[in-house]
Amino acid sequence: MNQQGESVTAAVLVIGDEILSGRTKDRNLGYIADYCTNIGIELREARVVPDVEDEIVAALNALRARYTYVFTTGGIGPTHDDITADAVAKAFGVAIGEDPRAIAVMAPRYAPGEFNAARRRMARIPAGADLLDNPISKAPGFRIGNVIVMAGVPNIMQAMLDSAAVGLKTGQKILARTVEAGGLPEGRYGTALSEVAAAHPDVAIGSYPAFVDGGFRNQIVIRGRDPQAIDAAHKAVEAMLAALSTHTQSP
Amino acid sequence: MNQQGESVTAAVLVIGDEILSGRTKDRNLGYIADYCTNIGIELREARVVPDVEDEIVAALNALRARYTYVFTTGGIGPTHDDITADAVAKAFGVAIGEDPRAIAVMAPRYAPGEFNAARRRMARIPAGADLLDNPISKAPGFRIGNVIVMAGVPNIMQAMLDSAAVGLKTGQKILARTVEAGGLPEGRYGTALSEVAAAHPDVAIGSYPAFVDGGFRNQIVIRGRDPQAIDAAHKAVEAMLAALSTHTQSP
Repeated sequence: MNQQGESVTAAVLVIGDEILSGRTKDRNLGYIADYCTNIGIELREARVVPDVEDEIVAALNALRARYTYVFTTGGIGPTHDDITADAVAKAFGVAIGEDPRAIAVMAPRYAPGEFNAARRRMARIPAGADLLDNPISKAPGFRIGNVIVMAGVPNIMQAMLDSAAVGLKTGQKILARTVEAGGLPEGRYGTALSEVAAAHPDVAIGSYPAFVDGGFRNQIVIRGRDPQAIDAAHKAVEAMLAALSTHTQSP
Repeated sequence: MNQQGESVTAAVLVIGDEILSGRTKDRNLGYIADYCTNIGIELREARVVPDVEDEIVAALNALRARYTYVFTTGGIGPTHDDITADAVAKAFGVAIGEDPRAIAVMAPRYAPGEFNAARRRMARIPAGADLLDNPISKAPGFRIGNVIVMAGVPNIMQAMLDSAAVGLKTGQKILARTVEAGGLPEGRYGTALSEVAAAHPDVAIGSYPAFVDGGFRNQIVIRGRDPQAIDAAHKAVEAMLAALSTHTQSP
């Protein structure tokens, strides 16, 4: 929650045929998720759509109406399949054209005659947007309204996210505490954990199995904004696990 | 396209707070994307939603109305935060309860007295569903209508997908050809590539930069169902790159 007590929420919109075909494995969602958690923004939804204008516009309008922010990745390069900036302009109902600010940051990167039509395409920015720095390859991302438009290449996206984060309102950071289930299977503690969860409604408790070295390793994660509520739930989880472990050792 | 000439489409619905918080990095979407491409199913959309029943129901109903199949991952374990099966039953408007077939495959795994309430929770299956084998930990996935419900743990999800795939209609496999851009920057070939794309409407052409060892490495990918159309576009892309490379070497 921010100073007004509202929670700050977000969605991610990943744009690109290459993610849906399997050709490229997305690495941006997890990065943005961590980033949001660390600055107190709750990521509530993510979508992946193809390079199809109507699909981008529909998803963007659904998400921007619902969450404080929408982060998009992909589709702002110099080739014909990069249609994100035009789709964003369409979603907002604003004009799009070469932005003199974008031209100014991009032009010095190119030798005389090399700042061609394809590259100038990356300077097309919807009217009313603010630019986001791209220290790696110069062509900027942008923010319009509550939508932050970034590249798909991970290191460029990360730089643009740093640039965007300066202007974002953030909430109280969501804290997480992880408890190792100590070899107990989920099915052994499931019922007792649901009772702990019901008794601690101010936190969210999740149980996450992973398959490691031929067996399951389970972790219980307690998340919330109030450190005292997390402490109390943590003690209850530890006591629950201890009781079950003792019980296991008895005949 | 299948024998009737329709394309077979799909969406993925990833369910879990842990993906949106960043705690767990999703590895299932990329796997399912590759799998679909390999068997001739077009993955057209993906969404990630939290462990909130209304969110799961809304996303599932939106996706199952629109695509041939929906693959869900996550939320079918033994703990209180595993609510996918109930949400799927609600989305379809059917009852849910312990399924004798699921009980029959699960019971032998446990010592006497160990098949407790939490574990029996994993035998709750919506009415009318078919079970999907889980050779790893026995608790089954299921298919109801056009929705395939799988675990979130990757190796279990993968086994369930193999089990589900037997019953899926598939289309003509989408072929892909990758052309290395040979060191040419995207901005150098963007305009020429858009002309190639316009001249070859039976294929989809994408250009994908990656940042490797401090520089960009670009690949052009041609996708389609007709091998001759791919060959023709491939030749046109090679000719375009050769012309640009030659031009680069001249003064």
